Amino acid sequence: MSKTYDDYREDVAGRANVEDTPELVAYYEELAEADAAALWTVANKIEPWQPVSSSVPILWRYSDLREKVLKSLDLVSPEKAGRRVIYLNNPGRTDVAAAVGWLYSGLQVMRPGERASAHIHAASALRFIIEGRGAYTIVDGHKMTLGANDFVLTPNGTWHEHAIAEDGTECIWQDGLDIPLTNALEANFYAVHEDLHQAVGYPVNDSTARWAAPGMLPAGETWKNGYSPLFKYEWEPTYEALTRHAQASEGSPYDGILMNYVNPSNGGHVMQTIGASMQLLRPGERTKAHRHTGSFLYHCAKGEGYSIINGKRFEWKEHDIFCVPSWAWHEHGNLSESDDACLFCFNDMPVMEKLGFWREEAFGDNGGQQPVLA
Amino acid sequence: MSKTYDDYREDVAGRANVEDTPELVAYYEELAEADAAALWTVANKIEPWQPVSSSVPILWRYSDLREKVLKSLDLVSPEKAGRRVIYLNNPGRTDVAAAVGWLYSGLQVMRPGERASAHIHAASALRFIIEGRGAYTIVDGHKMTLGANDFVLTPNGTWHEHAIAEDGTECIWQDGLDIPLTNALEANFYAVHEDLHQAVGYPVNDSTARWAAPGMLPAGETWKNGYSPLFKYEWEPTYEALTRHAQASEGSPYDGILMNYVNPSNGGHVMQTIGASMQLLRPGERTKAHRHTGSFLYHCAKGEGYSIINGKRFEWKEHDIFCVPSWAWHEHGNLSESDDACLFCFNDMPVMEKLGFWREEAFGDNGGQQPVLA
Amino acid sequence: MSKTYDDYREDVAGRANVEDTPELVAYYEELAEADAAALWTVANKIEPWQPVSSSVPILWRYSDLREKVLKSLDLVSPEKAGRRVIYLNNPGRTDVAAAVGWLYSGLQVMRPGERASAHIHAASALRFIIEGRGAYTIVDGHKMTLGANDFVLTPNGTWHEHAIAEDGTECIWQDGLDIPLTNALEANFYAVHEDLHQAVGYPVNDSTARWAAPGMLPAGETWKNGYSPLFKYEWEPTYEALTRHAQASEGSPYDGILMNYVNPSNGGHVMQTIGASMQLLRPGERTKAHRHTGSFLYHCAKGEGYSIINGKRFEWKEHDIFCVPSWAWHEHGNLSESDDACLFCFNDMPVMEKLGFWREEAFGDNGGQQPVLA
Amino acid sequence: MSKTYDDYREDVAGRANVEDTPELVAYYEELAEADAAALWTVANKIEPWQPVSSSVPILWRYSDLREKVLKSLDLVSPEKAGRRVIYLNNPGRTDVAAAVGWLYSGLQVMRPGERASAHIHAASALRFIIEGRGAYTIVDGHKMTLGANDFVLTPNGTWHEHAIAEDGTECIWQDGLDIPLTNALEANFYAVHEDLHQAVGYPVNDSTARWAAPGMLPAGETWKNGYSPLFKYEWEPTYEALTRHAQASEGSPYDGILMNYVNPSNGGHVMQTIGASMQLLRPGERTKAHRHTGSFLYHCAKGEGYSIINGKRFEWKEHDIFCVPSWAWHEHGNLSESDDACLFCFNDMPVMEKLGFWREEAFGDNGGQQPVLA
Ligand SMILES: [Fe+2]
Ligand SMILES: [Fe+2]
Ligand SMILES: [Fe+2]
Ligand SMILES: [Fe+2]
Ligand SMILES: [Fe+2]
Ligand SMILES: [Fe+2]
Ligand SMILES: [Fe+2]
Ligand SMILES: [Fe+2]
Repeated sequence: MSKTYDDYREDVAGRANVEDTPELVAYYEELAEADAAALWTVANKIEPWQPVSSSVPILWRYSDLREKVLKSLDLVSPEKAGRRVIYLNNPGRTDVAAAVGWLYSGLQVMRPGERASAHIHAASALRFIIEGRGAYTIVDGHKMTLGANDFVLTPNGTWHEHAIAEDGTECIWQDGLDIPLTNALEANFYAVHEDLHQAVGYPVNDSTARWAAPGMLPAGETWKNGYSPLFKYEWEPTYEALTRHAQASEGSPYDGILMNYVNPSNGGHVMQTIGASMQLLRPGERTKAHRHTGSFLYHCAKGEGYSIINGKRFEWKEHDIFCVPSWAWHEHGNLSESDDACLFCFNDMPVMEKLGFWREEAFGDNGGQQPVLA
Repeated sequence: MSKTYDDYREDVAGRANVEDTPELVAYYEELAEADAAALWTVANKIEPWQPVSSSVPILWRYSDLREKVLKSLDLVSPEKAGRRVIYLNNPGRTDVAAAVGWLYSGLQVMRPGERASAHIHAASALRFIIEGRGAYTIVDGHKMTLGANDFVLTPNGTWHEHAIAEDGTECIWQDGLDIPLTNALEANFYAVHEDLHQAVGYPVNDSTARWAAPGMLPAGETWKNGYSPLFKYEWEPTYEALTRHAQASEGSPYDGILMNYVNPSNGGHVMQTIGASMQLLRPGERTKAHRHTGSFLYHCAKGEGYSIINGKRFEWKEHDIFCVPSWAWHEHGNLSESDDACLFCFNDMPVMEKLGFWREEAFGDNGGQQPVLA
Repeated sequence: MSKTYDDYREDVAGRANVEDTPELVAYYEELAEADAAALWTVANKIEPWQPVSSSVPILWRYSDLREKVLKSLDLVSPEKAGRRVIYLNNPGRTDVAAAVGWLYSGLQVMRPGERASAHIHAASALRFIIEGRGAYTIVDGHKMTLGANDFVLTPNGTWHEHAIAEDGTECIWQDGLDIPLTNALEANFYAVHEDLHQAVGYPVNDSTARWAAPGMLPAGETWKNGYSPLFKYEWEPTYEALTRHAQASEGSPYDGILMNYVNPSNGGHVMQTIGASMQLLRPGERTKAHRHTGSFLYHCAKGEGYSIINGKRFEWKEHDIFCVPSWAWHEHGNLSESDDACLFCFNDMPVMEKLGFWREEAFGDNGGQQPVLA
Repeated sequence: MSKTYDDYREDVAGRANVEDTPELVAYYEELAEADAAALWTVANKIEPWQPVSSSVPILWRYSDLREKVLKSLDLVSPEKAGRRVIYLNNPGRTDVAAAVGWLYSGLQVMRPGERASAHIHAASALRFIIEGRGAYTIVDGHKMTLGANDFVLTPNGTWHEHAIAEDGTECIWQDGLDIPLTNALEANFYAVHEDLHQAVGYPVNDSTARWAAPGMLPAGETWKNGYSPLFKYEWEPTYEALTRHAQASEGSPYDGILMNYVNPSNGGHVMQTIGASMQLLRPGERTKAHRHTGSFLYHCAKGEGYSIINGKRFEWKEHDIFCVPSWAWHEHGNLSESDDACLFCFNDMPVMEKLGFWREEAFGDNGGQQPVLA
């Protein structure tokens, strides 16, 4: 069967609707030889009425992933593997190794005393700690000790390395990066530190000590980088902030109590391409559905609940991970009537906002909540 | 032959170097069933040492394209085709219909009295006029008349339509859009105007009359949109600006006299995702080579010259179009010893800059100029 | 007669209304000895219901000032006087040598071949040329030649000097500075160039050649100073811009066609403390009255007209200067039915805007125009 | 004795040096009649080599002020006085009722159950609590309860009122405002609330609950005002932040551990015209001297120490207040070898920075510390 060129016809004024004819097909073939083509053969495809994400809504259970990532401890050495990471491979995005949209994510495991090599890349990265004691990260000479549900940045253009203290335990954490985006934009660079490791040049946890004060900033500092000078966001004050916020505000109908991790020097997103948030769903809370552009990867940090994404219900509990693709309807519920539930999230909102691509819409029917189809 | 997982091994400290074994392959297959995979099987692929663009440096001759686009006049009606456009299909980017990187471009032709339907989309667009009299564009009620080498914006989220006056001639112009980027970011929306055409709500060319003053802006205006309020940049003052600039400055070693079209309200790029410039190469000028991130599509507006891209020489004259992919070495030369040569360019610099991906490097060897390989 | 402390009493809820008693007066005197005082004795004075400017609306006729400034040529040498300037001394602001509010202005005269010494100060300055040929200004090595109605900046922190070419004529111009503000804020610094003159380091008028292009900026420049990189704004393109604007817009009901001189690199005010504009009143145009905060000094650049300020009518013609104090009602009229009239203005709008002090109000009664009281 | 015009002569190239002559004096008198004057008679005065502040370095002891402000309780009623405030009257600034530069400050006292009337003004204000229980402030419907060393904003353009709960105690606090600046810039507006009081529209302390999280901001909020959405900065987390900071940083040689109170939505100053900070001097710490533009009013929040200002030593302990005028040399010392000392400060740094007037200089001689002259 020969190639066809009229697969995207639409019978709508202002849209392309040209049927293949032998004469046209010959013309198309002639164009192809000149590295050209006729717009009307693809116009309706490349100018869709609204986004249709190639990512599939999906949930990864931690119980399942945990077992798999631990298995890697025996299967590969850190020297050979570089890092022992099992990454989340969205069925619609396996070509770019993305968990959702242009965001990569994986679970990494390290043994006490192990220390990955220091390196640098143009991709922006984050680490959300799941379990274990003794994990630490060094970013441009700043060493940060990490516990469960702590969130740490290793931004675009910083030297960074991850390790576990000798007296720690096996640690598992989630990595999040914009590697697929950086590659798609043909902007990725990578280098390994010439000494394989970097020196610690500041008091441990100095970034948090200096930049995580409520409503205060160190005077005389002029931070000009595109990312936050605060590299580590600890779980305890984060949870306390959400709890206090919940007592003073109704929150969002779509998200309950939602707070963004921010660059304290300007109130902006933590990194140039990746935003992150933690949200709290009060006991029994069920949000309304909305949809928006951007790709979002959620990680249950506390409690249990469910999310309905494009009509399909996903139940989650601690450390389960799930994604909401661009323009997918979604709403969240806390399954407990007594405890709150918390969702960590990272996303590409900075990209959507800076490029003028952010759009948002509330679900109007059915009292604002989706009928569950599956 | 069964699937292999060790295609990207590198024997470098800090890089992945794991050989397939039956046990590992079984593990990989088990992971795949859980929508997961082992990072070390792809790490070296997705974390390249530096960008390797999938776009191919290529030049499209206007003499060739002109004939082809004119042929479409007889082959398809505007009603059926929507727009009669022959787009530039980079051999490395045919899957996304891009001329280079994530940028689309095509040549469009219209007959006198024809008027395309008014529509709106999240993609940002521009139009660079090549030939003909009587072309005009309407953007959100602002009508602009267009002549050769005029440059007009139809930004993200504006209602726009193109047409040729009844007393005009056949007109050809180049379209430029970020459709591939908008699609890749799953953020494209499209609508056709309910009346198929919009009303003109302002004096003709009012945008230029109000916003194109040198060093002056209309008082009391607060322009908050992400794109320029100046929609049309005329060729004559553009060329005059370059000429004056050339008398007062050495210019750039890599680009000669290079000026960006800007949003006069803030000095920034014309649109949120697309930058544009016009540059002048003085008689006999030959620039030095550099490379940088971002994708650039050039259009010769005046004169004749050549560009050397990754060691390959491309000669261009009026209305030829060529591309410089991300991180490709490039340098330019004016082939005339008496006349200047001008290159119009549009690119994704705003994306590179806002997302922190801009990197630049001078060619150090050989006096700053590439050996020509082809 | 002894000192009284109850001069500002108001019988309004929430306002101070305390009558002097011997006991209180004794208390006040005791406070004074401790470098303290009772707020209620001054509260109503220092918290007025609305601004009452200490500046007086006033007009200075050029015919009058010209004669006086020319007289200085014979009375003082440039060496002794530094600069031969007659400054405008607002009757309400003689203590700070201001023409209005915190703005200084004077008329300066120079003979051909004279050259003032190069100096630097924290005050921001501008020069608006009135008459003569051969004037030039050098700012940080950039030399600019100046003709009638040209407007030139010598910003805060730049080395600058004014001179007249040997083959020029006697030149008169208006100086405008924020010296009173800089002094009031105790932030003035002054230095004389060690060589008394600076070298010219760029092609003549390069600032205009590079930064005055309509809708274009030199690529690769990152201008970080608080003032415009464009130092000279020429009269001819300014007048042309106003004329074009007038054909495409109704303009403002309060100002006709009003355009701000701007920093082209960001669209902001020309300097950090001083804004400037040129406006055009069409033949026969009469604007409506409004009032706002900020101090404004006008200079008729072309034509003849009148302004009504707080009910008093001031008629002006070429090179007459008048002021509008803060919160004074004002409206303008063109007295010619055939020619347009142009008003140059400089003001402290950047101060008002940045500090959050800008307020504006339309005159509601009488069809928007003030009854003329004088 | 007749008026002289040559009081400011300087015998320096580039400066004015014109001696009075009968002819010149006649000329000056003629100019005066035309509301004009000769620049050279005042040039050296209005263009000083560097700032010489009219404010006097001075310290107000709390023990002294406390007694005086308490006395007002019996002398005036709140209805008559509006507010019972004793303000700090700098000997050099009594004409504008300023404590230093253009900053007003006073001590206010209120009895339990008293409630000042709600009002609004263009001046920016703050309140730093000294003693008592039960104080609260309402800003635009947000009620904040206040304890010792808490810092609260009542910004330009907000409805605000201060009160003491019925079950509280007599409270004393320091008010800080830019009233003198607002008046000088002729931009002050004042209104009393039509109901004399405003309704509380949010949960008590909601501003702090929502905006004082470390490294987090409420999602979906777009705060566009020029001042901080966080109105109350509590002492306890402030002191804890300084303590943590001190463990992770050397701090500033001139200020020890200095942190600015900031607008968390953008990292900027708390208000458009007033900045504020709290600093910690470690036990025995003695800083080096520097000077800079801007006016600073300090309040000892904890401990005891001294400051040397233009060579004069001022010893301070809790709730003493002292000022550092523009361009005055200053350094600080903690008199205790075991306890830290804390200084609250408010200042006009936002004004200096935004208007381009910030200048700073280290004291070079004597190991960086001033000889004490008094
Ligand atoms: Fe990394
Ligand atoms: Fe959402
Ligand atoms: Fe379009
Ligand atoms: Fe380039
Ligand atoms: Fe000057
Ligand atoms: Fe006005
Ligand atoms: Fe107040
Ligand atoms: Fe200081």
